[in-house]
Amino acid sequence: MTAITIIGAGNMARGIATRALAAGHDVQVLARDEAKAAALAGELGGATSGAQTAPITGEIVVLALPYDANLAVAGERRDDLAGKVVVDISNPVDFATFDRLVTPDDSSAAQEIQKAIPASKVVKGFNIVFAGTLVAGQVAGEKLDVALAADDAEAKDAVAALVESAGMRAIDAGPLKRAHQLEGVGFLHMAVQGQLGNTWSTAVKIIGA
Amino acid sequence: MTAITIIGAGNMARGIATRALAAGHDVQVLARDEAKAAALAGELGGATSGAQTAPITGEIVVLALPYDANLAVAGERRDDLAGKVVVDISNPVDFATFDRLVTPDDSSAAQEIQKAIPASKVVKGFNIVFAGTLVAGQVAGEKLDVALAADDAEAKDAVAALVESAGMRAIDAGPLKRAHQLEGVGFLHMAVQGQLGNTWSTAVKIIGA
Repeated sequence: MTAITIIGAGNMARGIATRALAAGHDVQVLARDEAKAAALAGELGGATSGAQTAPITGEIVVLALPYDANLAVAGERRDDLAGKVVVDISNPVDFATFDRLVTPDDSSAAQEIQKAIPASKVVKGFNIVFAGTLVAGQVAGEKLDVALAADDAEAKDAVAALVESAGMRAIDAGPLKRAHQLEGVGFLHMAVQGQLGNTWSTAVKIIGA
Repeated sequence: MTAITIIGAGNMARGIATRALAAGHDVQVLARDEAKAAALAGELGGATSGAQTAPITGEIVVLALPYDANLAVAGERRDDLAGKVVVDISNPVDFATFDRLVTPDDSSAAQEIQKAIPASKVVKGFNIVFAGTLVAGQVAGEKLDVALAADDAEAKDAVAALVESAGMRAIDAGPLKRAHQLEGVGFLHMAVQGQLGNTWSTAVKIIGA
């Protein structure tokens, strides 16, 4: 059993918390809107909740907010996140134009967050899966693929173990700089939803293995 | 029926030619090693072949070589490719390190090739599918997803029609600059083969739609 803190109380927080709770992990939900965190914890059952500034109980901390907010909260909780495994799930899409990523061409959301919290072990993950598919736990009867990138092998292994325990397949995408490519996958997956019926219930998967 | 010229006589040329011929298209295979082109055409049956400098008969020209060679041949055949639909299938991976792409951080193989042949309509495609899966025509009983990026809508539509006629699903990934993200997908798909058993028989697919 692993103690997981999720910062954010939106759809991705709900999805990741759902899978983690189903696998028997301890889940804490923290959010700027404490009432929203409490409501999500109540809806899920078995999770605790608190304000975004509350003490962090998890060994693994999932930043489950949009990129700008993930970067901001990482900076705000920098000292509390030191030494911890921190999962960035964001896709830094320019949502005004939906035509570019807002991060530098040679970087990624996860790398920018790692720079903000150098004493933490940042893992990129969950950015290629949609919230609703995490709640469902599968797509078309198939396991979800959750690709991970990190420089710290133990941190990546810990998140991979969480993913596998929750009935998904962990794919090791390599070092943290591969977050650049993973965020490209997340961006494309979002960008093609229109032509696929806008269900946001699809998954990117490597089939045949 | 569409006339397709494939430049290259390697595995990707075999895969794309196999699917195109099965769909009843006219296929011409050109290669620097004319004997190799003739051997592939003979193996496939129904294709014509010639030297890399031979007259191009296809309306759609597929550059089915590694990135450096695609860029070189595009330059060499620049005048002959003017006005044509040119498909770049390459993943510009640094194969010495397998740790980066050799193209500029703000570009892609397809964009660099477009710069070399500005009078052609470059389409990025087939870079996320492996050669063997094109020959097989499916993976795990599922249609292959072939993602396309291009600035010229008619050119993209023409390649999409080719893809669909050959029993695959065309995904519109957007303008040519999305080749940057698509080449990231191709890179990741190659990079994770080791952990998936090194069969190179997998496919990246959007499931659930």
